[in-house]
Amino acid sequence: MLKTHQKHYSNLFAHIQRHVNIKEEELDDICSYFHIENYRKKETVLSAGSIARRNFFVVQGCLHMSFINKKGVSQTIQFAIENWWMTDLTSYLFNTESQFSIQAVENTQVLSISSEREEELYQEHPKMERYFRKIYQIAYAAFLCRTKYSFELSKEEMYWQFVESFPEFAQRVPQYLIASYLGLSPEYVSEIRSRKRY
Amino acid sequence: MLKTHQKHYSNLFAHIQRHVNIKEEELDDICSYFHIENYRKKETVLSAGSIARRNFFVVQGCLHMSFINKKGVSQTIQFAIENWWMTDLTSYLFNTESQFSIQAVENTQVLSISSEREEELYQEHPKMERYFRKIYQIAYAAFLCRTKYSFELSKEEMYWQFVESFPEFAQRVPQYLIASYLGLSPEYVSEIRSRKRY
Repeated sequence: MLKTHQKHYSNLFAHIQRHVNIKEEELDDICSYFHIENYRKKETVLSAGSIARRNFFVVQGCLHMSFINKKGVSQTIQFAIENWWMTDLTSYLFNTESQFSIQAVENTQVLSISSEREEELYQEHPKMERYFRKIYQIAYAAFLCRTKYSFELSKEEMYWQFVESFPEFAQRVPQYLIASYLGLSPEYVSEIRSRKRY
Repeated sequence: MLKTHQKHYSNLFAHIQRHVNIKEEELDDICSYFHIENYRKKETVLSAGSIARRNFFVVQGCLHMSFINKKGVSQTIQFAIENWWMTDLTSYLFNTESQFSIQAVENTQVLSISSEREEELYQEHPKMERYFRKIYQIAYAAFLCRTKYSFELSKEEMYWQFVESFPEFAQRVPQYLIASYLGLSPEYVSEIRSRKRY
């Protein structure tokens, strides 16, 4: 059976095909560049201070990226659910110490690739440059919008904008992590939620 | 004379070569995909509400991207100096109305490419997928760091971190634009600057 027929590879298969015109045979070889990793809820995927040697594609589950702020509290800056990529990109690209930790929010399966293998992947399958070019273009575009929201919306508006834009996600992820991601205290989120909006 | 020998193309030439192993002959053809545009200080490069049909590489000068906030005040979210790319990427990728304006901070020369020509460029010169994949990976990595700073640093620390990281840039760009970019009032920046730091 082709690897691409297996559930964990088929997600990546579909995601690549959404962005690049590529044959199944080629995809099957591409999948061989990745390793399956399974993490239990709250398990650490990447530790701050280490070097991020792998990039992670979420097959099933949810990851969050965070750092410990000056008050000693974990501050979430990003989530990754199914079909999202996540790593400390600066550390991954430049072999510097990671500024962030990555942890599983729920039981999570990822496909991982090392930076060396990613380079080999581009040599063997140049179409993957196109795939990742598109992925990072879209991610960057999304970050520009997020920056606009952070300037434009009040904290309460940010919360509702997030919950209404990603309703399923807001159900899945604990409130305190969403609060952290939005730069709010859990108490403030409880207060917002207890008010009727209109 | 090859186009790449001209000053405005040679910057792009060098920037591409920094990221991709590519011959001068190929680069000369690549340069033909771009147009030279010149803007005077404060001239509009892209208007919010229009569709961003072009991506801009700064040869000489400085651009800033902004939107009008609820108070009717221009809010800068990004700068681009020499060798940086800038456009409203969501609008450029998906043909939606631009949420941002782009304006020249000083007299500025750019090389522009349309999204259609960018697509043709990838077909003819697949190495350019690699170039842009790297550009956007680095831009995305920088945005993750910026997000961390925005959570981690006080407003005063953000100001000094910016000025010390980009001293030449801080000299060139008007204080009120740096203040806007950092989410500070111009008065607050004056106050910070008037204090001795240590």
